Amino acid sequence: MTAVSDEGMWLLSDPPKQLLKDKHKFELTDTWAKNAMLGSVRLNSGGSGGFVSADGLFVTNHHVAADSLQKLSKSGQDLLRDGFYADARDKELKCPDQEINVLQEITDVTKEVNAAVKPGMSAGEAFAARRTVMGKIEKESLDKTGLRSDVVTLYNGGLYHLYLYKKFTDVRLVFAPERQAASFGGDVDNFEYPRMNLDVAFFRAYENDKPAKTPNFFKWSETGPLGGDLVFVTGHPGTTQRLETLARLKHRRDHTLPYTLYRLRTLEAALIQYSEQSGEKRRQAATDLHSVANARKAFSGQLQGLLDPIVIEQKNKSERQLIESAAAYKQRASMIPGPVDPKWLSAFDDTLDALAKIEGVQRRLRGFEKEYNLLELGHAFYTPLFGTARHCVRMGDELPKKPADRLREYRDSNLESLKYQLYSPAPMYPELERAKLATSLTFLAENLGGEHPLVRLVLGGKNPATRAEELIAGTKLFDPAERKKLVEGSKEAIDASNDPMILLAKAIDAEARKLRTQYETEVEEPERQGYAALSGVRFLTYGNTVAPDATFTLRLAFGTVQGYEVGGEKLNFHTTFGEAFEKAARLDGKEPFDLPRRWLDGKDKLDLKTPFNFVSTADTIGGNSGSPVLNRAGELVGINFDRNRHGLVRNFVYTDVQARHIAVHSKAVLEALRKLYPAAPLVKELTGK
Amino acid sequence: MTAVSDEGMWLLSDPPKQLLKDKHKFELTDTWAKNAMLGSVRLNSGGSGGFVSADGLFVTNHHVAADSLQKLSKSGQDLLRDGFYADARDKELKCPDQEINVLQEITDVTKEVNAAVKPGMSAGEAFAARRTVMGKIEKESLDKTGLRSDVVTLYNGGLYHLYLYKKFTDVRLVFAPERQAASFGGDVDNFEYPRMNLDVAFFRAYENDKPAKTPNFFKWSETGPLGGDLVFVTGHPGTTQRLETLARLKHRRDHTLPYTLYRLRTLEAALIQYSEQSGEKRRQAATDLHSVANARKAFSGQLQGLLDPIVIEQKNKSERQLIESAAAYKQRASMIPGPVDPKWLSAFDDTLDALAKIEGVQRRLRGFEKEYNLLELGHAFYTPLFGTARHCVRMGDELPKKPADRLREYRDSNLESLKYQLYSPAPMYPELERAKLATSLTFLAENLGGEHPLVRLVLGGKNPATRAEELIAGTKLFDPAERKKLVEGSKEAIDASNDPMILLAKAIDAEARKLRTQYETEVEEPERQGYAALSGVRFLTYGNTVAPDATFTLRLAFGTVQGYEVGGEKLNFHTTFGEAFEKAARLDGKEPFDLPRRWLDGKDKLDLKTPFNFVSTADTIGGNSGSPVLNRAGELVGINFDRNRHGLVRNFVYTDVQARHIAVHSKAVLEALRKLYPAAPLVKELTGK
Repeated sequence: MTAVSDEGMWLLSDPPKQLLKDKHKFELTDTWAKNAMLGSVRLNSGGSGGFVSADGLFVTNHHVAADSLQKLSKSGQDLLRDGFYADARDKELKCPDQEINVLQEITDVTKEVNAAVKPGMSAGEAFAARRTVMGKIEKESLDKTGLRSDVVTLYNGGLYHLYLYKKFTDVRLVFAPERQAASFGGDVDNFEYPRMNLDVAFFRAYENDKPAKTPNFFKWSETGPLGGDLVFVTGHPGTTQRLETLARLKHRRDHTLPYTLYRLRTLEAALIQYSEQSGEKRRQAATDLHSVANARKAFSGQLQGLLDPIVIEQKNKSERQLIESAAAYKQRASMIPGPVDPKWLSAFDDTLDALAKIEGVQRRLRGFEKEYNLLELGHAFYTPLFGTARHCVRMGDELPKKPADRLREYRDSNLESLKYQLYSPAPMYPELERAKLATSLTFLAENLGGEHPLVRLVLGGKNPATRAEELIAGTKLFDPAERKKLVEGSKEAIDASNDPMILLAKAIDAEARKLRTQYETEVEEPERQGYAALSGVRFLTYGNTVAPDATFTLRLAFGTVQGYEVGGEKLNFHTTFGEAFEKAARLDGKEPFDLPRRWLDGKDKLDLKTPFNFVSTADTIGGNSGSPVLNRAGELVGINFDRNRHGLVRNFVYTDVQARHIAVHSKAVLEALRKLYPAAPLVKELTGK
Repeated sequence: MTAVSDEGMWLLSDPPKQLLKDKHKFELTDTWAKNAMLGSVRLNSGGSGGFVSADGLFVTNHHVAADSLQKLSKSGQDLLRDGFYADARDKELKCPDQEINVLQEITDVTKEVNAAVKPGMSAGEAFAARRTVMGKIEKESLDKTGLRSDVVTLYNGGLYHLYLYKKFTDVRLVFAPERQAASFGGDVDNFEYPRMNLDVAFFRAYENDKPAKTPNFFKWSETGPLGGDLVFVTGHPGTTQRLETLARLKHRRDHTLPYTLYRLRTLEAALIQYSEQSGEKRRQAATDLHSVANARKAFSGQLQGLLDPIVIEQKNKSERQLIESAAAYKQRASMIPGPVDPKWLSAFDDTLDALAKIEGVQRRLRGFEKEYNLLELGHAFYTPLFGTARHCVRMGDELPKKPADRLREYRDSNLESLKYQLYSPAPMYPELERAKLATSLTFLAENLGGEHPLVRLVLGGKNPATRAEELIAGTKLFDPAERKKLVEGSKEAIDASNDPMILLAKAIDAEARKLRTQYETEVEEPERQGYAALSGVRFLTYGNTVAPDATFTLRLAFGTVQGYEVGGEKLNFHTTFGEAFEKAARLDGKEPFDLPRRWLDGKDKLDLKTPFNFVSTADTIGGNSGSPVLNRAGELVGINFDRNRHGLVRNFVYTDVQARHIAVHSKAVLEALRKLYPAAPLVKELTGK
């Protein structure tokens, strides 16, 4: 259970200084850590980035930028496919709904949060008490600092931290290459290595219509990393399950993941079918399809991992070790004369109780997980229009309540961001939303059966295809003004609405809320309590040498730049431009192995030996996409964009034998910007030259 | 429950003469029926066809021929994509494993089969008794006639007929167009209309290395059909479920179909991912992908149908009518003085008992359907290599038994065809089979969970991907000689084999057989008994005016050539060549809307007004692909290749409002053969000119 080798997505407030010193002879200073924190960017559409100039310029992945690129495109003008470059600031394109957060400060509020839960409280009461105190802490912080304030749950409930973010909602597109260059190899090469992807894009944060001042940024390295170099990855890894119990992992393996893959393959099939209808439809569905296919590949890897008896045995072993270590404390406590740490005495029983409690949770969860996913998580309604309708309906009910009593997403500290999303003018396509909704309504019926009262309620006497048609044809929620009217008009406007999507959201709200409460009291709260107890034992045994699971909050990972072997073949730590052209030629330049015209025409201008992508052992996961990769000096030497397939089990276990994250080399970006695009002003901003 | 309008896939031995006379003033003579029977072809790879010359030439669909086209192709020579034409007989290409059957005679054996089941027999005994008597009837017929002899179950057990087939295993490819011409519009336009597909291919049956003599053939019509014409479709519709009870249909809706779609989308996603890796891999996976995508679309339509309350209400109503009619017989019986038909007395109780019995079957089936599908139907092992291994293992056990005691597929009358398939030299591709097997082993684990004893047994301590790799790398069953050695070497050879695929098939055989027996005794036999009882009541009420459900045996349907309306738009009964070029232009000629070079270059030679595809109301289903469409004179006026999407609910209900089958116009084939390909000798054989 202790961190091995380069394992760990560490808290910026508690980085592994000693480990870095012992292992890599690196002194991580507070200044270094602070610059890493203030230079790192979280994109709320999902992903990471880093400031690379003092004028708000930041870099991320093309595939993270895809959401904005898609929303800035329209029929006949496809920025996602064709790329974009603004060679002057007044040509930079404002994204319709991109929000970025930059972490400013971390405070431990564990005691305050836990103090709210009194002995003897039911799970429901405990959950509510915790929610209330978290809401209160956030509200007070927001009022005091004006910063976005989020209480973050760490170690599945072992710690609670208050994160303060500076927020930017004026984000403008500066540069993106063609999709073929950014994701050369497409789905085929996703999660594979060797790779040759220029998976980067540049945005600029604005404040008051001027480029934001960002004195904490990462200097762009003109040389990039060498083999054997120590590198750091700073970013926002999404979720990992390394500290989950075996019972929880088996539940994932046998229930959650099969359901998830069933769902993803269903959506993927539908989106592919939609895309094949015409070039324009393909354009419309591009980001949805990419994100579904990417998730399908990631979750497939997770499932293979959990079906691997070696992985299960490794988890089993670490769980037994925790039990044994707890037993040892109890025994030592009984042998020491005089008073002992009460934690020593209770550790063993706490561990067994917590494991049993979490195992019991899985049994209960099986009984309603599908209903919960479909109705409350909205898997039955795969269209943003339903999400919007639900927010409208719930805001009507929730906003009149005291902030601390509201559902978490309607807390005061989140409202501004939420409304920013809700009123987004980003384009939507009725035919695409109809196809998506029909697919997910069918998926609902497939999962619960045609007689299920919730299915009948949702379908209202139609088959899924007809019902989707009726909902999409009837709703006015495509129009941002309509959404605003409903939300600002409060509960009266909602009650008076006869928009079919609003009526649907209203009709199922009682059931959906019931499922949510059931999930909170029968799953979330008991698991939190169980994991808090396990965390206590783990802290006792291993101290702070085990990093918490990822939670889409800022973390620091470190690793070594090095290649690896597969089936006897040695893979170099970096690829080159030349390899991209060779692979394209070998596969007849057929999609997804087609390089952009600009690249084919400009080949002679390029130094084909330029390193293109590189790998290191640093510990990353989805959400780290776009993360700055830094060297000892804190300079940006790469932009992380993927893991290899051996890294797909990282959700559960870390290994550095073959698992690697993959990054675009900082030198490759400069070479491409100089020779192919050419983007001299951008290069100058990055390098001063 | 009575046939409405043009409903019905009728038995050739009992065609609806009166109906045709009353409705269409058509006298269906015995000569006409006999020619239809002897001219019709069943392709054992799945599909229909019809002889079109006295020299064994027959026509079918390109998508039915695809299986053979694929097997005749290799890297660098893609007949499926590029087409083929033999302008002389010695250039015709022998298919590696195509078998066709031509129905010669039909005999009713219902009494014999039912007499074998004695009162008081358990379901298991009854099933065995029935199997034994069917085997005996078939064996005697084979010995007597030398013809392939199959006892066919009709009305789900209401009737049993003995079908005698003449068999041809020397089948040679004569002509196939490019895939782009045959399935212009691909998956997008599959099950859609208007269509413009040259979905035809020609083969020739050989006997003793000479073209077979086929005096019963269909004369090729040079004019084709006009709007309003009566047409007939003769062919081998696969399966329908129109006579199934509501309980069975609900089971399909809530269990079988969701599972099926989950499976198909899983396979489709995997095959698409495989295909994207290179042009050659795309070629390898082409037929698998087409058949999976086609099934996915068909079953999606079925599910939408069963989720449509109108369809369910219609089934509910016809079931109530049957009950009411049975009740009326009972009441009449009680009012008539003197002796009455005992069927009148028992009809009502029989109906209720049968419905209850069939409903009970569904409850039991839910408990083991997935295991049965995965293990016994082989859904866990999506590769012909496993099927081969299982046949080897089971033939070792079964062949020493008395023919009548064997599993049905090893009855003497089927052995020759089975071995012909088993020893097929058709190419297989290890990487493709590995990808398919890994996918289906994962699907097994997803469905049953990682701890399930059968999953552990199958995976043998590996994850699915690793296990698939090991099985494919280790098996020698790619080699037909190896298969022959095992089968001919009998049980000793099997026992001595350490081929991992054979070992797998052996390891799970006891469990798989157990599931099969459970299915036979808890599902098949009680359903047969239940449906036989319902058939009795239906015969009593409606006589022979209700056609049996389809069973991939020869049937005759009839209908009227006519267009229909969708959303106010009137669709003509036929399309033209010109419309194909217009659609390709409108969609930028991008795949799947890319016409072959030959067509683009030859456009000026074509009469663009030539009718291309046409629709009629005749009652067809999957399996009717390639069916001859005949006019009153018994001439071939078209080749059926699809239904429109409104026809996808035909499994359960027939309607002629919008549902249509779609056929290639006989004139279109001649125009293309004359102007584009040119194939003068083939045209001459068809038309004499």
